[in-house]
Amino acid sequence: MTIRKAVITAAARSQHALPLQALVDRDGQQKSALKIILEEALSTGVETICLVVSPGDQSSYAAAAGDLAPRLHFVEQSQPRGYGHALSCARSYVKDDPFLHLVGDHLYVSQQKARCARQLVQAAEAEACSVSGVQPTRENVLTYYGTVGGRRVAGQNHLYEIENVVEKPTPTEAEQTLIIPGLRAGHYLCFFGMHVLTPTVMEILDEQVKSASPTGRIELSPALAKLASKERYLALEVQGTRYNLGLRYGLLQAQLALALDGNDREEILAQMVELLAARERSQLNHESHS
Amino acid sequence: MTIRKAVITAAARSQHALPLQALVDRDGQQKSALKIILEEALSTGVETICLVVSPGDQSSYAAAAGDLAPRLHFVEQSQPRGYGHALSCARSYVKDDPFLHLVGDHLYVSQQKARCARQLVQAAEAEACSVSGVQPTRENVLTYYGTVGGRRVAGQNHLYEIENVVEKPTPTEAEQTLIIPGLRAGHYLCFFGMHVLTPTVMEILDEQVKSASPTGRIELSPALAKLASKERYLALEVQGTRYNLGLRYGLLQAQLALALDGNDREEILAQMVELLAARERSQLNHESHS
Repeated sequence: MTIRKAVITAAARSQHALPLQALVDRDGQQKSALKIILEEALSTGVETICLVVSPGDQSSYAAAAGDLAPRLHFVEQSQPRGYGHALSCARSYVKDDPFLHLVGDHLYVSQQKARCARQLVQAAEAEACSVSGVQPTRENVLTYYGTVGGRRVAGQNHLYEIENVVEKPTPTEAEQTLIIPGLRAGHYLCFFGMHVLTPTVMEILDEQVKSASPTGRIELSPALAKLASKERYLALEVQGTRYNLGLRYGLLQAQLALALDGNDREEILAQMVELLAARERSQLNHESHS
Repeated sequence: MTIRKAVITAAARSQHALPLQALVDRDGQQKSALKIILEEALSTGVETICLVVSPGDQSSYAAAAGDLAPRLHFVEQSQPRGYGHALSCARSYVKDDPFLHLVGDHLYVSQQKARCARQLVQAAEAEACSVSGVQPTRENVLTYYGTVGGRRVAGQNHLYEIENVVEKPTPTEAEQTLIIPGLRAGHYLCFFGMHVLTPTVMEILDEQVKSASPTGRIELSPALAKLASKERYLALEVQGTRYNLGLRYGLLQAQLALALDGNDREEILAQMVELLAARERSQLNHESHS
């Protein structure tokens, strides 16, 4: 299996300005968040990328992609019908090929030389099946994530056979069906925001879209649960950290993480210390005047 | 003198996306940089704000202004003819009134309860003349700033009579004409990015536009030098810090400064420490594997 295509979803109305935000990447270059995500995808060897966007966002996204714009295909999600529906909009681009899927509002910092998406694609190509990136997550934040149940693949350190997928489980649900033998107590494997998927997922989503009402929402996790029942489907514990730009201070966290992982580390550390010192001086000043 | 109008220039092509960037303000609310700048202006008591923009930017700026959009007047700078020309585009809005002027790519954090723009407007209303915000700046960075020469107003701690204005002086020029008695050695008073100006400035700019070639650039500093020769014109050392969003890491610096000055200070400090610790762990990890 070789992955040549990628799909990035960025159509949610509340999040669609996030990929346009300006950041400084690890190489010290100013880029849009979108360009950093596109580079993450292209680091795996994919050749083209399909962007699923809200109607009217094509031109601002193409501008934010800069010199990578020629490698983009745009498809519109014309109605806000959920994450699974957004992904299914890329079916005519994906056709019968496996593909890398990233969300449009997360950035990744790898703990290895290989970027996070590259780790994932390498695992999927080696195992020739769908593989979702996951990370061990404490049970108190399960309500934010899709969570997988299953068991470790024998002899493979970070690879798991997925038997079940539940979107935003309660701790009780998780305890009943999602415990992974060998994982730290109170921890579950939650989605990391990146997947390599076979075209079977598109068939499953298509059936769900057809059987839903014309405005019904289609989520991704139920389709992935179905995928696990049909095909071999693995989870890879990616060696890296995800940054959700949509959180309050999400952009700040992502920018600090990029800067501390990159060429400008010493400069940024010095600036952080200077800011903290200036803040202390200003506080002392306030106090001495009050 | 009462200031009821403000003009914000945001037409430079290289900078026009900066006001659209998303930040979290001191109050913990997510806002565009533009909205934070508009709130800075409105904190002074001005009633309406004229935004000088590049053609086509009205709708994205109006969206970024949110509930403040009804207080905006847009004028276009149709050709990139410099900062002074941009300001002169607001002449029909300003008419015969004094006005507050801010640049569209700087944010301010005050060391006092009164925001920086409020400090400036209070000084201008009390003195009934043009007042530019300044801050003492080391001579090695003079090449970035408009710089004023003059002398301290007797009995006033942070107020100076402006006699001369030079855009981006060399250290030699500065030493010859811009030394301010009483300022720390090697320091000069540089513009802070905010001014209260009388309509005389619009007359001066208009003359300069008329006598220039149809595509000639008109800068602001020469017009302000002329203003100093015609009217009483003061500089106020504003008690606060300016953050230029257009610098590399300018958005990061501004976001950290806002966060450390606001409601979320403790949360952000904890997150910074956590990030630094995670980065150290990851480095130790790399080293133990290499």
